[in-house]
Amino acid sequence: MTIESAQFKRLIRFVSSDGNTYFGDAILPEGSIDVYQCKTAFKINGDIFGDYQLTEEILTVTKLLSPLAAEQVPAIRCVGMNYIKHAIELKMQIPKYPVVFFKPTSAIVGPEDPILVPSACQIHGAKIDYEVEMVIVIGKTGRDIEEKDAQDYILGYTIGNDVSQRTWQMDRGGTQFGVGKMFDTFAPIGPAIISKHELTDTSNLRIYSQVNGEQRQDSNTQDMIFDVNKVVSFMSMGTTLKPGDIIFTGTPSGVAVGLEHTPYLVDGDEIFFHIDQIGNLKTKVEFEKPNQKILEYYT
Amino acid sequence: MTIESAQFKRLIRFVSSDGNTYFGDAILPEGSIDVYQCKTAFKINGDIFGDYQLTEEILTVTKLLSPLAAEQVPAIRCVGMNYIKHAIELKMQIPKYPVVFFKPTSAIVGPEDPILVPSACQIHGAKIDYEVEMVIVIGKTGRDIEEKDAQDYILGYTIGNDVSQRTWQMDRGGTQFGVGKMFDTFAPIGPAIISKHELTDTSNLRIYSQVNGEQRQDSNTQDMIFDVNKVVSFMSMGTTLKPGDIIFTGTPSGVAVGLEHTPYLVDGDEIFFHIDQIGNLKTKVEFEKPNQKILEYYT
Repeated sequence: MTIESAQFKRLIRFVSSDGNTYFGDAILPEGSIDVYQCKTAFKINGDIFGDYQLTEEILTVTKLLSPLAAEQVPAIRCVGMNYIKHAIELKMQIPKYPVVFFKPTSAIVGPEDPILVPSACQIHGAKIDYEVEMVIVIGKTGRDIEEKDAQDYILGYTIGNDVSQRTWQMDRGGTQFGVGKMFDTFAPIGPAIISKHELTDTSNLRIYSQVNGEQRQDSNTQDMIFDVNKVVSFMSMGTTLKPGDIIFTGTPSGVAVGLEHTPYLVDGDEIFFHIDQIGNLKTKVEFEKPNQKILEYYT
Repeated sequence: MTIESAQFKRLIRFVSSDGNTYFGDAILPEGSIDVYQCKTAFKINGDIFGDYQLTEEILTVTKLLSPLAAEQVPAIRCVGMNYIKHAIELKMQIPKYPVVFFKPTSAIVGPEDPILVPSACQIHGAKIDYEVEMVIVIGKTGRDIEEKDAQDYILGYTIGNDVSQRTWQMDRGGTQFGVGKMFDTFAPIGPAIISKHELTDTSNLRIYSQVNGEQRQDSNTQDMIFDVNKVVSFMSMGTTLKPGDIIFTGTPSGVAVGLEHTPYLVDGDEIFFHIDQIGNLKTKVEFEKPNQKILEYYT
């Protein structure tokens, strides 16, 4: 049975009890926005970017996956230095235009999977860092989008971790962030995409991160230099945004590299991210068994 | 009819006289490596990354397309500063490790299509620049690939133009190359992928570019700091390379930004790229009709 033209609120992709993967609208306890509490979901049929049907069929949620699979994401477009205080902590100038870089979609990982730190990052004290970010999910193809029209091209929002290895990003990066941010599992996203119809105002959301329960970043999207509509407009100038493109909108101050006496992430660390109305993203850090050859080569 | 286990030499993707798109093995005049002369091709069936059949069926080639469509390319991985003299002309340090950045696959365009310079780039004298590059095409999934095994993961090689708008890349990029290299049509590739079985040694290939018949870049892959096997190995550390990933291996000296008194690209310019054994890539520059709103906003 189909609810005519009903729209999802919190889109999840998940494995159900039959072992198959589905899209669904998360069913949560009254008042909760913690999608990890979601045990069931209304099944969604069809194309989530086009004609889809939100059904009344309820499925069991066995495992939450990244709300979009890597193959469903044409590009991960990222804004750097988009919070005033973060630019200051990294001793960078306040940018006049958005600073843009890309992460490969091979880095995408789900909200129940660990960040698996590869051998090549377990060097120089393994400077692994977290970056909580509000992530825009594009729903419609567009180019040269004006700020006033940006909302038409947005499907919704999720939470992302722009995991970064600072040795490769900075000391060895040759000015480019590419290497330090490219590794597998360095782009956890999820757990849900909250619809733009549910979250109509992103201008005043508390955004914070904790490591093992200890507060690290704690800011508000009010501190953003370029807001959601500006970011979508800028990213689309001369450039075709496609359904499934995700845009990391930058991280606030409080990352390990910016704080004195704050340790980088180590094996077993638990990272908790929160953005008001959007929800929580919790990921665990796991160091892969070091490959001695790689360690020796890069140390 | 199928030639048992035959392998392609120069893989092209093209529109045929029936209006459909095919993969094929380019049929060229004896001794020629100029794929633009190709009028016919042997049809290829199946998965070019797995089991494919090179048939004896000959199809007419009506239009050459990018050898892989954007949707067939999971990521465009790029090495910056990989030729010693180019690093010097940009006043950058000779890198100890490959400098890595990414272009979005939305920038891919075919060998018969123009570089369409968007309004947002028609600013500050429109500093549009060419960069001839040897491009590696990955054929097999791999991670932590050792240099000695790199060839197992390569499908072949093509030519690419890492088109760059220098104002956005440098003056306004905030250290990151992202914006200056992200625009639609800023990644022409092709016209063919030469098989690694045909091109077994990439270490001594002349590589040059001409604009309107005038020589600009003229170098040799011998000048590369990191060779093909090193690049594949480095790019795969902690990172899963996938079939269809393409790797731009860097450009030699002689780009407009590095030369005094050399004009940037203008509307109507014809760019000619050559790499020994791989072939030629010819693209025309076309300035899109300027959108006054965008021009005024960004000037």
